[in-house]
Amino acid sequence: MTKKIPTRIYLNEEEMPKNWYNLRADMQEKPDPLLHPGTLQPVTAADLAPVFCKGVIEQELDDTTCLIPIPEGVLDFYHAYRPSPLVRAYYLEKVLDTPAEIYYKFEGTNTSGSHKLNSAGAQAFYAKEDGLTSLTTETGAGQWGTAMAMACGFFDLGLTVYMVKISSEQKPYRKALMEAYGANVIPSPSNTTESGKKLQEKNPGTGGSLGCAITEAIETAVKTDKCRYVLGSVLNHVLLHQSIIGQEAKTALDKYGVKPDIIIGCAGGGSNLGGLIAPFMGEKLAGKSNARIIAVEPASCPSFTRGRYAYDFGDTGMTTPLIRMQTLGSGFIPSANHAGGLRYHGMNSTLSKLYRDGFLEARSEVQTDVFDAAVRFMKVEGILPAPESSHAIKAAIDEALKCKQTGEKKVILFGLSGTGFFDMTAYTAYNDKTMSDQVPTDADLEKGFASIPDIPQNK
Amino acid sequence: MTKKIPTRIYLNEEEMPKNWYNLRADMQEKPDPLLHPGTLQPVTAADLAPVFCKGVIEQELDDTTCLIPIPEGVLDFYHAYRPSPLVRAYYLEKVLDTPAEIYYKFEGTNTSGSHKLNSAGAQAFYAKEDGLTSLTTETGAGQWGTAMAMACGFFDLGLTVYMVKISSEQKPYRKALMEAYGANVIPSPSNTTESGKKLQEKNPGTGGSLGCAITEAIETAVKTDKCRYVLGSVLNHVLLHQSIIGQEAKTALDKYGVKPDIIIGCAGGGSNLGGLIAPFMGEKLAGKSNARIIAVEPASCPSFTRGRYAYDFGDTGMTTPLIRMQTLGSGFIPSANHAGGLRYHGMNSTLSKLYRDGFLEARSEVQTDVFDAAVRFMKVEGILPAPESSHAIKAAIDEALKCKQTGEKKVILFGLSGTGFFDMTAYTAYNDKTMSDQVPTDADLEKGFASIPDIPQNK
Repeated sequence: MTKKIPTRIYLNEEEMPKNWYNLRADMQEKPDPLLHPGTLQPVTAADLAPVFCKGVIEQELDDTTCLIPIPEGVLDFYHAYRPSPLVRAYYLEKVLDTPAEIYYKFEGTNTSGSHKLNSAGAQAFYAKEDGLTSLTTETGAGQWGTAMAMACGFFDLGLTVYMVKISSEQKPYRKALMEAYGANVIPSPSNTTESGKKLQEKNPGTGGSLGCAITEAIETAVKTDKCRYVLGSVLNHVLLHQSIIGQEAKTALDKYGVKPDIIIGCAGGGSNLGGLIAPFMGEKLAGKSNARIIAVEPASCPSFTRGRYAYDFGDTGMTTPLIRMQTLGSGFIPSANHAGGLRYHGMNSTLSKLYRDGFLEARSEVQTDVFDAAVRFMKVEGILPAPESSHAIKAAIDEALKCKQTGEKKVILFGLSGTGFFDMTAYTAYNDKTMSDQVPTDADLEKGFASIPDIPQNK
Repeated sequence: MTKKIPTRIYLNEEEMPKNWYNLRADMQEKPDPLLHPGTLQPVTAADLAPVFCKGVIEQELDDTTCLIPIPEGVLDFYHAYRPSPLVRAYYLEKVLDTPAEIYYKFEGTNTSGSHKLNSAGAQAFYAKEDGLTSLTTETGAGQWGTAMAMACGFFDLGLTVYMVKISSEQKPYRKALMEAYGANVIPSPSNTTESGKKLQEKNPGTGGSLGCAITEAIETAVKTDKCRYVLGSVLNHVLLHQSIIGQEAKTALDKYGVKPDIIIGCAGGGSNLGGLIAPFMGEKLAGKSNARIIAVEPASCPSFTRGRYAYDFGDTGMTTPLIRMQTLGSGFIPSANHAGGLRYHGMNSTLSKLYRDGFLEARSEVQTDVFDAAVRFMKVEGILPAPESSHAIKAAIDEALKCKQTGEKKVILFGLSGTGFFDMTAYTAYNDKTMSDQVPTDADLEKGFASIPDIPQNK
């Protein structure tokens, strides 16, 4: 007889993964290297040293080591809030009346409310190891900023957060939360940087953007003694840290002999998706699994489904290395979309490459449909999902309903990356039916594409 | 060698308690019975039937059965979010440099953000069992209302929540959250009830109170077909449901052979405290333990430390049965205090009796001290605590620091009843140093005491 699978599976402390999973090591064709925007040559560790901590630079440039040991100090941090539960969605299965088995890995039980803490802790640890005294970063919806504030509180580091101005006004409580952990939160664009001043001159009264906040944070990090910059998504070292999600999920499923047929994650910059799928994609690349792996993005910011595969900047100020990725252009301005965390113009390079090579599927959803799924989910599973995570819920429900039609008993795993505690404005808009499902026109996209650098590599 | 105690202890589904713990069964001297306010005779099941569900009436009147089996339907609900973690506060111990061992039972990982869900689920289950179609309740800070909204979403019941008007204005997101789960939220006092209208005539522009919201909710329940009223604290059946907290905590500690020397809980109406301590107090009453058991209340609403032990109403409208309890009088108006959930004038009758008989200690704290403790805690333990729960943190830290002075290696267990996600206004006030530590004067208390009924039992 099969062992009954509990509703919530928690690994014991001894069972918890001791390694991160570097997916690039499994890829026969690697993602293209980051390029220095001046020389158009692959970046070196020395190029990145003024901006990033040593530990993460090493990880960013390593595409051959598959299992990278998690340092003791980071494991110690993880023990403060991990393991996260892997939940069997018995209640959702029942209400959908589907033969499918649905599981979700829930990353929202920590105070930051999302998976972002997994990389925040690692990056703060490496900063401490380098003898730094402070860090800078940006935040949009506020999850990453909160995670960094918590990590810096834990490791006793100073932190300056450039928060997209419109978000800081819409989410005063997010700001208060970061401040409660000791962070200095500055609405961006600000007058504390040259790039911030310049942007305000060009666009008076602008509400800011993630790309602009990144530029300000990098400028401040480079100008400040014993300070570096940290980023919450897009780069490969962030996905590496997030692989703790997939590592735990796989360990927990293996314990019960369960193999997922479909793995689903929401995708903004790619950190949650990349972290969730890492070991499963590894099996798929090795031919040991036929699982379908699906990225779900907002129709308002469709870098996978309507973007171009090109070398592009990570920020509006065009100060980052060039990244070959699915992109809408760093000049793309997403239409109003409450799922703030998914409003980024680009996509992690590894995920972009896997998508181009046919290992990763992608689809986009408008947000009313996403919130329909969220409310359906929350009434039976209890958890209030973040708008970002609800994109994955939407796809999981759709796949489960397909199984109902075909009678197939597939195993679906999706990532529930966070809670919606600070997104009640969006839920209110949904309840009041004032939510916009606006999608960019082809002309909107062309404007964004025009900002993609005109370099030989993009011909 | 002792087995290493993990940072977070989760029980397996099979280890989870199958019984609630009815503490009154262990008491040689029982708490005095509820009295009918008209006849001054002990209330009967028939008296309570128009207001409450059958299942909870039976539990309310039972002071002899110690272990009461949790129905399958409630266990099913509990599995959606329990077990809650029992956390060893290694990080807090380290920063305090104390020889004490500190544990906390964390009830804030569910979406309602607090322990309230434990009774909400049980009460919704019994309502469904009685064939009801809707429920009414009140909420102050919003935790109970959210919990009931979730439970009614799960069991597919209608819900009307009377929310203290000032809270509904200060916490629009709480209101939105309840609405997202399908509840109908009405700011109280309202024009939907006679009692609400009367109160507004007497006090134009009033922000409302918990006592008034209770009166309105009861009035509506009694007037509505297939509808009953549910209460989130104070009554003994609520404490019974909350004993799942103590039952899980004790099972988890027993697993590692740990016996607490000091058990601490915050106290408003008593549901969290009573639930946490139930099985531990049982051992103490049986002479099997010398543990100190400590209630912590806000100095602004000190029903234990400065209240009277008398028969009093549970609500301002004087419609509930009379409860013999520690009370400040149903007419007591607490001074402004952000820890909304602890602003109730009375205290559960069982806890009141245990306090009078010397089994339970109590202390009060001003809120600046409470927030000092909260911030100290959150930086190392990560979790953002609710202001209510932070009262327990304050006492736990004080006891741990005493151990540091004496060198004693005591084991401290406290209840972390919830998170502060919806209390950021209070954290901002603390950060801005605009928080009030106002404490009622003796004259303020006298005014409240004057509202205690002048009946023979109170002579």
